[in-house]
Formats: sequence, C-alpha cells, structure tokens
Amino acid sequence: PCVNLFNEHLDSSGSRFAPLVVLELASDTKEEAIAWLLSRIRDWQQNGGAELLVEQLGPGIGVEEKENPNMFLVGASMQRLLCGAEDLGLFKECTDGSMRAFTFASKHNFKDFKGDGDGFLSMAECQYVIKHELDTLRAKEETNVPGYSHAKLYPGKSIIRRLLSKGILIQMFPLHENEELKRLSFSWYKKVKVSLQPLDDIRHYYGEGQALYFGFLEYFTFALVPMALIGVPYYLFDWEDYDKYVVFAVFNLIWCTVILELWKRRSASLAYYWGTLCRKKAFEEPRPGFHGVLGHNPVTGRAEPIYPTSKRHLRVYLVSLPFVLLCLYLSLYIMMIYFQMEGWALSIYDENPTFWTHILLFIPSIIYAVVIEAMNLIYRYAAEFLTEWENHRLESSYQNHLVLKVLVFNFFNCFASLFYIAFVMQDMELLRQSLATLLITSQILNQFMEAFLPYWLQRRRNKKMIRKIQKRRLYEEKELPLVEQVRLEADMSTYLGTFDDYLELFLLFGYVSLFSCVFPLAAVLVVLNNITEVYSDAFKMCRVFKRPFADPAANIGVWQLAFEAMSVIAVVTNCALIGMSPQVRSYFPESETQLILCTVAAEHVLLGFKFILTFLIQDVPKHIQDKLARLEFESLEALKKKVNNAACSRESNSNRITFFEM
Amino acid sequence: PCVNLFNEHLDSSGSRFAPLVVLELASDTKEEAIAWLLSRIRDWQQNGGAELLVEQLGPGIGVEEKENPNMFLVGASMQRLLCGAEDLGLFKECTDGSMRAFTFASKHNFKDFKGDGDGFLSMAECQYVIKHELDTLRAKEETNVPGYSHAKLYPGKSIIRRLLSKGILIQMFPLHENEELKRLSFSWYKKVKVSLQPLDDIRHYYGEGQALYFGFLEYFTFALVPMALIGVPYYLFDWEDYDKYVVFAVFNLIWCTVILELWKRRSASLAYYWGTLCRKKAFEEPRPGFHGVLGHNPVTGRAEPIYPTSKRHLRVYLVSLPFVLLCLYLSLYIMMIYFQMEGWALSIYDENPTFWTHILLFIPSIIYAVVIEAMNLIYRYAAEFLTEWENHRLESSYQNHLVLKVLVFNFFNCFASLFYIAFVMQDMELLRQSLATLLITSQILNQFMEAFLPYWLQRRRNKKMIRKIQKRRLYEEKELPLVEQVRLEADMSTYLGTFDDYLELFLLFGYVSLFSCVFPLAAVLVVLNNITEVYSDAFKMCRVFKRPFADPAANIGVWQLAFEAMSVIAVVTNCALIGMSPQVRSYFPESETQLILCTVAAEHVLLGFKFILTFLIQDVPKHIQDKLARLEFESLEALKKKVNNAACSRESNSNRITFFEM
Repeated sequence: PCVNLFNEHLDSSGSRFAPLVVLELASDTKEEAIAWLLSRIRDWQQNGGAELLVEQLGPGIGVEEKENPNMFLVGASMQRLLCGAEDLGLFKECTDGSMRAFTFASKHNFKDFKGDGDGFLSMAECQYVIKHELDTLRAKEETNVPGYSHAKLYPGKSIIRRLLSKGILIQMFPLHENEELKRLSFSWYKKVKVSLQPLDDIRHYYGEGQALYFGFLEYFTFALVPMALIGVPYYLFDWEDYDKYVVFAVFNLIWCTVILELWKRRSASLAYYWGTLCRKKAFEEPRPGFHGVLGHNPVTGRAEPIYPTSKRHLRVYLVSLPFVLLCLYLSLYIMMIYFQMEGWALSIYDENPTFWTHILLFIPSIIYAVVIEAMNLIYRYAAEFLTEWENHRLESSYQNHLVLKVLVFNFFNCFASLFYIAFVMQDMELLRQSLATLLITSQILNQFMEAFLPYWLQRRRNKKMIRKIQKRRLYEEKELPLVEQVRLEADMSTYLGTFDDYLELFLLFGYVSLFSCVFPLAAVLVVLNNITEVYSDAFKMCRVFKRPFADPAANIGVWQLAFEAMSVIAVVTNCALIGMSPQVRSYFPESETQLILCTVAAEHVLLGFKFILTFLIQDVPKHIQDKLARLEFESLEALKKKVNNAACSRESNSNRITFFEM
Repeated sequence: PCVNLFNEHLDSSGSRFAPLVVLELASDTKEEAIAWLLSRIRDWQQNGGAELLVEQLGPGIGVEEKENPNMFLVGASMQRLLCGAEDLGLFKECTDGSMRAFTFASKHNFKDFKGDGDGFLSMAECQYVIKHELDTLRAKEETNVPGYSHAKLYPGKSIIRRLLSKGILIQMFPLHENEELKRLSFSWYKKVKVSLQPLDDIRHYYGEGQALYFGFLEYFTFALVPMALIGVPYYLFDWEDYDKYVVFAVFNLIWCTVILELWKRRSASLAYYWGTLCRKKAFEEPRPGFHGVLGHNPVTGRAEPIYPTSKRHLRVYLVSLPFVLLCLYLSLYIMMIYFQMEGWALSIYDENPTFWTHILLFIPSIIYAVVIEAMNLIYRYAAEFLTEWENHRLESSYQNHLVLKVLVFNFFNCFASLFYIAFVMQDMELLRQSLATLLITSQILNQFMEAFLPYWLQRRRNKKMIRKIQKRRLYEEKELPLVEQVRLEADMSTYLGTFDDYLELFLLFGYVSLFSCVFPLAAVLVVLNNITEVYSDAFKMCRVFKRPFADPAANIGVWQLAFEAMSVIAVVTNCALIGMSPQVRSYFPESETQLILCTVAAEHVLLGFKFILTFLIQDVPKHIQDKLARLEFESLEALKKKVNNAACSRESNSNRITFFEM
C-alpha cells in the first residue's frame, strides 16, 4: 500500500511518484545548495547518489501568511525500495513461514510478494528505507556545501547530517497516510472494546519501536491484573493483618520477577515475527552533533571525527557524575525542608485548629510538588546539555547516558520522600496516604500534560490552517489536498521517542512494587491508569504528533534493565517493611537482633531465588530458539557445501558462496 | 609440522602419510564391520565418505602378551586437512594481522601459508579436523553396522558415535609428537624459571581449552600476588586489629571483582588471537549416550532420537534435585556428628590431659576428612549416573548439569564446617586454624592424587613395555618406533578434561575470598600452591595422560559464572565476619541493632558497587571490539556491494554473494 497512495494528487505536477518523506530546508537556503542536494539525491547509485525521486512542494492554496517554499517530497521506485530493503537486511516472512533476510534475487520466495512487489513493504518500511538512503548519502570530493563555506564536508561524510547540524535542513519527517491512519485509530482507541491492541497494525504503521512500547504497556497491564485481584480483598478485609501481607509481598516479588522474565520471551516472539530479532544492525554512524578532530574510523576506515574516549570519560566522571550527585543532594535537602515545613504546619494546626490552619496543612505538599516538578524540568535540560557536552559518538550511547541520568534523578525525586516516611519516620499510615496521593495525582497530571495539553496547543496553533481547510472542504467535499496535508504535518510537534512513556511506566512500576505490602491497592490504580494511558498515548500518536520514523527495535533496550533493577530494590524495601511491621515484631518479643537477622536472611534467600528464577526462565521461547538455530544451521551448511563444491574440487578461482538457499 | 613427522617410520608399510589419530576397535570386532568402516572412511566425500587415509597398525616387536590387532592409524592429505579446516570455520591470522575464517580459495592471504600449506595448521588442529570429519561421517542406507544387527543405524546417524555407544570402537585418540612434546615440556616445566608459561605453545600442542586453563591458572596466581603482599604485613603486625581488617576485606572484595572482570578481557584477547572468539560453532550433534524415539530434529531436519524436554525436566526437578538436597542434608548431618565428636574428645582431654587423649583430639578431624573424601567420591559417581540418566541431548548441557551438581556438593562439603565455625560457634581462632589446616592439607593431597599417583600407577602398568623399549633402545639407539609408541599411548590413562583442575582452583578461590578477613595469609598459601600446581599439571599433561583432542574454547565457560557467584557469597560472609568482630562491636556499645543494620547496609552498598563495577568494566577490550566490529562491517559491506551489483543491475538469476573479500 505504499506506492499508489497519492498518485492522484500529483497528476498536476506531471511526475508520478508516491511522496513518502518530506525534507524541509531553511527558507533562506541558497539556490546552489538546493540544486546540489537535489542532484545528489537523484543521482545514480553508481555515481554515489541515492537514486531517489524528489520534487518541490507547490505553494499552498489561499496563502496569506509567509510559507516556506523549500519543502521537498521524496519518494522512490518500487525497485529502488526493494533494493534498499535488501541493503538494510530487512527480515520478511517466507512462504514456508520462517523469517529470512529479504533479497531481491529470491523475492518470489517471500510471502505476500506479488507482481512488482506492490504492498510487500509497509509504508513505514518504505519510509525507513528512504531515511536510511538519505542518511547514508555521502560527500564525494566536495569540501563544503555549495554556497556555505562554513558547512565543511569531507569524503564519506553524511550530507544530511551535516545539513542538519548546520541548520540548513530544518527537519525530515515521514508523511502520514490518512486512510490507514483513520482505520488504525478506529481499531485502536476510537471504539470502546475489550479486545487487545492492534499491535501488528501499530507496527505496520509506526514501526517496531512504537509497537513494542504499546505491547509492553498492554503486557504490563495484564500482568498486574493478578496482583490487583489479590490486592483488593487484602485491602477490603485484612487491612491490619500483616501475617497475610507477608504472603502477599512474597507473591508480589516473585510475580514481578516472573513477569519481567516472561516479557523478555514475549518481546523476543514479537521481534522475531516482526523480523527485528535476527536482523543485523548496520554499522552505526556518528550522531549529527558529534565533533572532534578529523581522523579515520578504525572499523570502517572512513574519514570521521575522532574524539578520545579518555576525554569523554573525564567529562562523565569528573563533571556529570558530581553534578548528578549534587542534584541528588539538593533534592534530598529540599525534601528535608518539606518535612520540616510539614511538621511546622502540623504544630500550628495542633495549637489552633481552625479552617485556615487546616488549609495551611496542605501548603507544604503543594509547594513541594511544584518544586519537584520544576526541578525535574530544569534537571532534564541540564542532563540533555551535559550528555550533549559529553560528546558521545553514537546516538545509542547518548541515549543510554541520558536515560541513566534522568532515571536516577526521577527515581530519587519520586521515591525519596516515601523512603523517608517508611524507614526514618516509620509511619505506615502516612506512607499509605502519600503513596495513594502520589499515584493518583501523577496519573491525572501525566495524562493531562502528555496528551491533552499538546493537543490543545497544537489546535490553537493550527486554527488558521484548519479554518482554511474547512473553507476548502466546503467547495470540494473531498480529502485534504497533499500540499495542505504536508504543511499541516510540518507544523505538528515532533514526537521525541518513547522515553517519557517508558519513564512513566517505570515510576508506576516503582509505586506498585516498592511498597506493595503497605498499599495493596496500588496495582488496581496502576491497572486503571494503564487502561486510560493506552487511549491517551494512542490518541497522542495519531493526532498530536508528526509521524515518527520507524525504529526497528528488537527489545525495549535499557528499560528492561531499569525495570529489573527496580524489582531488586523492591525485594529490599518489602523485606524491610515486613520486618518493621508490629505483627512480625511480636514474633520476636525479646530480641530485636533475631528479628533483623531473620529479615536479612529472608531477603538474601529471596534475592537468590530471584536470581535463580532469572536463569531458569529462558529469554527466548524454545520454538523461536529452534528457528534461529535453523537459520544459523542453514548458513553453516551453505558454507560447507561451498567448501566441498568449490575448494575441494579445485575450483579455487571462485571465492563466492551460496549464502541464501531456499 | 603436522605432515612429515612420521614418514620415515612408514616407509616399510609402503604408504606415505602422517598418522594423526588412532582408532582402537574391540579385539573381537567382525571382519566385515572393519572392512565397511575402513571403506567408509576412505570413500570420496561426494559418496558420503570422509576421504581420509587409514591403515592398520602392524604388530609390536617382541610380542609375548596378547595385543589388540585392531588398531588403525588415520591421517589425511594436506589438501583434505585444509578443506576440513575451512569446513570447521577455523580462524587464522591474515597477512594484515587481522583474524579471518580460513578459506581454501583465499589461502594465500593468510600469514604463514607457504607452498602446499605445510605447517600452516598445527598438529592439534589437524587432529581436530580429523576428529570432526570422523564424527560427522554419517550412515547412508545402512540399517545396522555390518555383522552387528543390534547396532542400528539410520540415514544421517554418526557412525563413530554408534560404534562408540555399542562398544565396538573402544577409543579414538590423537597421537603425541615426541619432538615437539620434548620442546614444550622443557620450556614449560623442566627448566626452573621466572618467565611466563608458554601459552601459545601449549595452545599449539593441546588446543585452546587447555591453554585457557593454564592461562587462567597463571592469571589467577598473578592476580593473587597483590592480595598476598598486602596480607603478609597484616598477618605479621596487625594480627588483632580488626579496624584495619575492614580495609583489607573491602580491598579484597573489590579486587576479586576486578580480577574476574579483567580475566574476561584477557580471555577475550587470548581467544581472539587464537581464533576461537569469533568462530561460529558448528551445530552440536547429540551426545553418544543420548537415546529416544527416532524423529526429526526441528533445526537440521535430520533423523535423530527425540526425547521430550518435559520428561527431562521431570527427572531433573523430581529426582536429581531432591537427591542433591538429600546429599547436602546428609553432609550437614555428618558435619554435626563431627562437631559433637570433637566436643566429646575435647571434654575427655580436659578431664585427663595425657598424651593419648591429646592424640584423641585429632581423631575426629581425621575421620571427618576421610568421610568427606569418600562422600565426594561416591557423590561424584552418583552425579555422573544421574546426569547420564537425565538424558541430555548435548554434551555441553550434560557438562553444565554435572558441573552444577558437583560444584554445589563440593562447595558445601568444603565450606560448611567453616561456615558453622564462623557463624554458629563464632570462634575466630578455630576458624583461622581450620582454614590453614584445610588449605595446606588439600594442597598436598591434591598434588599427590592428581599427578604423582596416576604417574606411579601408569609406570607400574607400563613396566613391561618400558623394559621392552629399553631393550630395543640398546640395539637401535634411536627414537621409539611408531608401533610401540602407539601401543604405549593407547595404554595411558585418558585425560578427562579440565573439570577437576578448575574445581580445585574454584575451591582455592573460596578459601581466599570467603574468609579473607580472618586469615590474610590464605592468598600467600594459594599463590604458593598455584606455582607448584602449574608444574604438576604440566607434568601430568605431558607424561601421565593420553594426548587429548583440542577443544576450541573461547572462554572458561560455566566456571566464570561459578567464580563470580563465589565472589558474591564472599561479600556476604566478609561483611558478616567484620560485623561480628569485637573491635567493630565496640563502636556500637549500646545497640546491637544499630551494628547489624550498619553491617547490612555496608553489604548492600558493596554488592551494588560490585554490580556497577561489573557493568563499567567492558568484557572485551576496545581494540578487540574494534576488530570484531571491522569483521562485521566488512561482511555487511560485502552484502551491500552484492545488492548493488547483482540485484539492482537485474542480474537476478544469481543468488550468490561475495562473502569473503580481501
């Protein structure tokens, strides 16, 4: 469905190709740079071009305000897209049901390959291919971008990355496909249903990274249902019976471990059938912002900026790490002030319990909440700045460092006060209250900040455009014309990846697992939150943001680790909470030492058990393992056949092997 | 050097090949089976044969006793060996210094490849190639071994494995090469030196598995030197100052983590330059003892016995696991009896301190030591029987289950009494004494049992042969003739792998790390032990045992995990020991609770720190990572080039790719 979608809109311009990706150059870009870029994009691959189709977007209808004329639509022939897919090593399903790397030569062995291959690649895949081809469009002999002497180039430098880093290219984004989007959004969030999410459709439209996020969200919700179901009767009937809480807490801890392990299996299954599990990743290019002295990459041999790892380590360990620790200390300090303020407000209320002093009781919490939000925001900017300044070569390592920084701080900000209440104040009633308050407020705030606020902002921004469209609709009663659609999408906010979504789930997981034994209702609240989260996230993806490029992820990456770390911390906190409960204490009336030793022993046993469980549950299901082994075996057999045929029959002049045999 | 070693000995028999491997069939093997086996070994590869050279070993000179006539020497042409090496995917060094999979076609790109390739492969590699070719010699239409109707065959069944499992083939072993062995043993253990071990020579002669063991032994010894150096002054001057012991223990814990992490790096370096790090493992065949209903392997599609995993799990969890737990309980029970006996002996001595009652004091220890040794021996047989009965498909999974069983029991037997003394009796003086006694006796016992006892047994067994040889030497004054050498080697004991050697190191590591803070001299003793261990192990390898087949290992496998687990347990025990020391207790005079909480907190911080350290130290050094990435990158580039050349130029009839480009 990725080819003949927009043909009807392009009849006027004469050329007949389906636009997939939009390039927006700065409105004051010099003519020579544009001409050069277009020629490089259109040039044959033999000449080092990208061999793609590209044309300028015409002016919008009814333009009164200034429009950027330098918008370009990029597309490609089916043949080119298929070759690009092979180049990327995309895995597709074969007629025999196995997943194999697509090759143009063996195209007819693949399921769903008919005729020219129309509809074989999803639109998201086509857009990913184009993005890859544009990203790997490299400079030849040019020393700078024509017309821009400061935009230096050297042989092998990615042109698009240089244009991006110099601000000549403003953005590059894939186009939405309205028909498909309408179908997807209907099955996803518009109808009220009890069915699962359309993961395959999401993957088809947004790519594997997005689909894995929604798959994880769905899985996480279902996995919490047993905890919620067990939690409700505990909440209703056994409010103060810690004996049974021990059973509940132990169940929770094992359950947390089991669901995280089982998620790995589910994720491997999904990734296998989506073809990302065994796809070989292309060599990762330096990120656009990376700078250094021009040298040669030891792996590729290409010219590339080189920045010494030792310098980066110095920056990480001598600047970023102290900064993060300082921020944590500051956060701790502010927390202590909050508790002092609260104590002070309480003492005023106790002295003189009037309506106004009762209101005063809430003031510290409100101030603290606002300060925390502000700190989170400021810290986020600081973390981004620092991570940028650390000058990581790879986007992935940049992301990992950023995630780590933000994660630690957010974890601290969210949970430090709870830890303080639990282990220093030892006030379980207050802990339960704070936990409930935090959970409910963060849920409401998040849904609002995440989906509805951006939607509202965008609506306001696009008011004029929408009015214009409605005007146009009146006398045409048809679909939005392409030109308008492109300009509309160009103005939408950019989706910044699944970072914040995962962070939210991570914190929710913390609320459920860390203090599960004092507030068994947490799982219920999180399940409810997740159900609305699915809808708000889906809405956000479909209506608020620009379409993001597909991200062929094979797993949820660093977040798996983060969730596992949380579940280890949960063992420690829950054991401590149980050990502190008066009911457990009453078993050891004469000796506190005995009690602590027992608690510590139980904690160690649980940690050991968790560790063994992690080993026993295999990360990849047996049938997927078999399929992977089969792929491996076939390539080895092919190699062996080649040895016997070619070398030993003394046909030693050929050094080719049959790599792919069906 | 693997080809023209023995030619002079074979002149008499007329054929001219270097014997590499010996097959010993049962002396009553039927003629037809022998004829069939030899023809299959000699047959062309196109006909499903192994295309190897094989001939019968002539009778020994001066035979009075009955000799087995069915000894066969196997060799191969250089061409065949090189093709076999390609088949196995052996990695060799190229002229540009990188490691690549050897291919016959690109042979001249490899360093040290001269002329026909004489000397390119080491003798161990040649023998490994022959072993592989024999192992993968498969039945065609035969339904049973000729002459043996009970030795069933089916298409695809490995002939050698069936012959082994039916007892028709007694053994298959590689031959020693006396000249090289003499050189190796001289540089290895005969000269007293301060140099490092000749790891590359060991690898050249015995293969990577052996070399990694000796590499680990050497590394472990050097890594313990700092601990030993710090331990000595602690032992000499600060005997009772636990304050400083805390520092020593923390240093030890971090040091243990660091050396294990750094070993991974060293091991990766060694394995890279030995070509095993990136070698793709061949698909693992079922082990000879594996049985089940004949079915089809889901990966290879070949006929193969199938045994349901669920049944195996039932056996593991319902029989083996309870059995192991029972044995552990029994061991605990015996330990308790030992402590009772000791208390009883002590009370008798206290009542009536004479010479005889003083001797009585040692009786319980001696009985306990003997019982433990006996239990270890019996348990080892039981573990082997159980693991065999669990019917694992793969040799590797058999080994892992066996290692786990034996490891847990040995750990328990060795350390349970120390744990009891440390944490139940809380008698540090006794702990220190026991530790020293155990370390020293186990060291002496091991060296004796491991190297000198087998050597002495073998000497006695081979007395006649040796006398015969000496007689022969008298009138020829030359090297031992081949026939005699083969028969001599066939009678040597079989080397059962590095299992026991690693187990010994594992237990020594336990002595050093678990209770390091009460006995800082442990590291010194272990260093001394390791130095003698190198010599006795080297002697054992060269003189006592049959030459083992090379094992192209890339790391020390499950032992890395075992050592890491030990270092985690060490954190717990050391923290507990420090917490229990009177000096630390004196800091918390009023509250024992405070003390325990601090100890637990310190333990958690140390464990967390250890975990972070494990993450921060990369498992593979940067320069090796670069080389691996380069290999990966080249194969991707080759794939891409193929895409651009073949598919996109519409040469779609070819589905071959250039896999290896130099």
